[in-house]
Amino acid sequence: MDGDRQQMKQQILFSSDLDDPAAWAAAVAALRPEIEVVDWRNVTDPASVPFALLWKPPAAGLAAFTGLKGIQSLGAGINQLNLAELPAGVPLARLIDDSLTETMTDYAVAAVYRHYRGFDHFERQTRARLWDYRPARRKGDFPIGVMGLGVLGGAIARQLRDLGFPVSGWSRGPHRIDGVRCHAGTGELPDFLAASRLVVNVLALTPATAGILNAGTFALMPAESFVVNIGRGGHLIEDDLIAAIDAGRIAGATLDVFSTEPLPVEHPIYSRPEILATPHVAGAIAPETAARTVIENFDRALRGDPLLNAVDTARGY
Amino acid sequence: MDGDRQQMKQQILFSSDLDDPAAWAAAVAALRPEIEVVDWRNVTDPASVPFALLWKPPAAGLAAFTGLKGIQSLGAGINQLNLAELPAGVPLARLIDDSLTETMTDYAVAAVYRHYRGFDHFERQTRARLWDYRPARRKGDFPIGVMGLGVLGGAIARQLRDLGFPVSGWSRGPHRIDGVRCHAGTGELPDFLAASRLVVNVLALTPATAGILNAGTFALMPAESFVVNIGRGGHLIEDDLIAAIDAGRIAGATLDVFSTEPLPVEHPIYSRPEILATPHVAGAIAPETAARTVIENFDRALRGDPLLNAVDTARGY
Repeated sequence: MDGDRQQMKQQILFSSDLDDPAAWAAAVAALRPEIEVVDWRNVTDPASVPFALLWKPPAAGLAAFTGLKGIQSLGAGINQLNLAELPAGVPLARLIDDSLTETMTDYAVAAVYRHYRGFDHFERQTRARLWDYRPARRKGDFPIGVMGLGVLGGAIARQLRDLGFPVSGWSRGPHRIDGVRCHAGTGELPDFLAASRLVVNVLALTPATAGILNAGTFALMPAESFVVNIGRGGHLIEDDLIAAIDAGRIAGATLDVFSTEPLPVEHPIYSRPEILATPHVAGAIAPETAARTVIENFDRALRGDPLLNAVDTARGY
Repeated sequence: MDGDRQQMKQQILFSSDLDDPAAWAAAVAALRPEIEVVDWRNVTDPASVPFALLWKPPAAGLAAFTGLKGIQSLGAGINQLNLAELPAGVPLARLIDDSLTETMTDYAVAAVYRHYRGFDHFERQTRARLWDYRPARRKGDFPIGVMGLGVLGGAIARQLRDLGFPVSGWSRGPHRIDGVRCHAGTGELPDFLAASRLVVNVLALTPATAGILNAGTFALMPAESFVVNIGRGGHLIEDDLIAAIDAGRIAGATLDVFSTEPLPVEHPIYSRPEILATPHVAGAIAPETAARTVIENFDRALRGDPLLNAVDTARGY
């Protein structure tokens, strides 16, 4: 009996130094008891494992996992993965679920309101024991621009729209969102920036978007604008942001991602009181809810169907 | 002609050291050209003035204004007015309009998200050049309690409910708001506090609510809770809050009102990095929109009808 049951178990390879294998194993088993999530250190028959759930590949590599039919990234992006280290021809998917969308949207709302209601300014005033009255802004005077209009950016744009902000969006390809002015492509970037008092970046990081938050971008935004980066550190030229703050062009920033993480103690970002630096906490994927998506992709991989949020390696995300 | 037109003008006495008489005059005239808002220094025939718009009474007092049929406070509260200085028997109204409700709600949302997403903590970490990862909270684990369920508190409770927070409300008398657990009276205060990870106070300040945010209140809240005060400074025993923070019972606070305003430079609140002190900026009444409410009450006063948001002097608000 035990032997039979063991035979029926299907395994998912797990490898991450950030995520908890026990939490994922429990969440998957709660929905599908016959699927076993196994940390890479405990896999005894690599060739029999059909699916992998990875933040990064195991230290020992994936060469022994010759039966893989699908790989699920443990993040919404795949920039943490070196594609050259993955087996060629095995479908790869990003992981986006409601818990990630909710936490990323929450962070965007928190950052937008921080700047909109001047809490960034008042935080500095409080520390300096200063009472500096500034009247409340109104939303009509604080248009928001969302860069990236996929699942995450779309949810953020809709939430900010529902809260009453004027919202524009920009993305590489065309999108349509009710009540959001959507711009597409490099040609429409200047108009988008000129109309955005605050930009929230949630683009995927690709060669086409790397460094997109730079001096030229900041110069096109209205005076005393704000930058919120919850994409990747590679989207932002950090020295350009610091220079734009020094020049009074950018009034403040809330950053969750950096060129180097953890942000080194000597980094100049820490010297700018206009910047809040949070330690890559914007999005959190809850195994309890995301296990459903992982199992769906597990089933799709075994059937040979396209994965949910499959990565287009040509496009880069 | 000019004399006739002059005769037709009706005057509203204006007195405030915080508000702009020209902005109010323009906003009222835009809607009703025959009504003239006149700063108290420029009134030539006090006995003929039927209505007053006051933050505080004129320095010369109101004794000469013998024809007043109504007084409109320039604030949502009347605590800035000494009722003994107002003519007996003249109806008095609080001023609540959409611009005030919107700005107060915005502030509440900004303060809730500040604590919910740990920006209070990360602000301190950033200044200390520290990278201290803490996973994102989920709304289900962050129930909000709103104290005061009138026009402002009701709008705040509904907005936070719509954003996905579990929301309870407490007020002196019974209220009913869909999706918000409403508590009423002193007897239900402990249950309300025990269920609130963060309280937003927007009660009216009366003898019954003065000092309601005190050591006893904080002791009934869950460990490491948060306090947001946008009511009046008199609601909060500031020393108790500081002691509760020192004891680790309260994890942080966002305060917009204080026992003394402007908050004196030596005040101990400034010594607590867990407190953000904003300079009484939560609510802002825009003359352009609020003029409508003032005119409505002007008309009601002249007809002898009850004013909108009339103050019940027995109740105290």
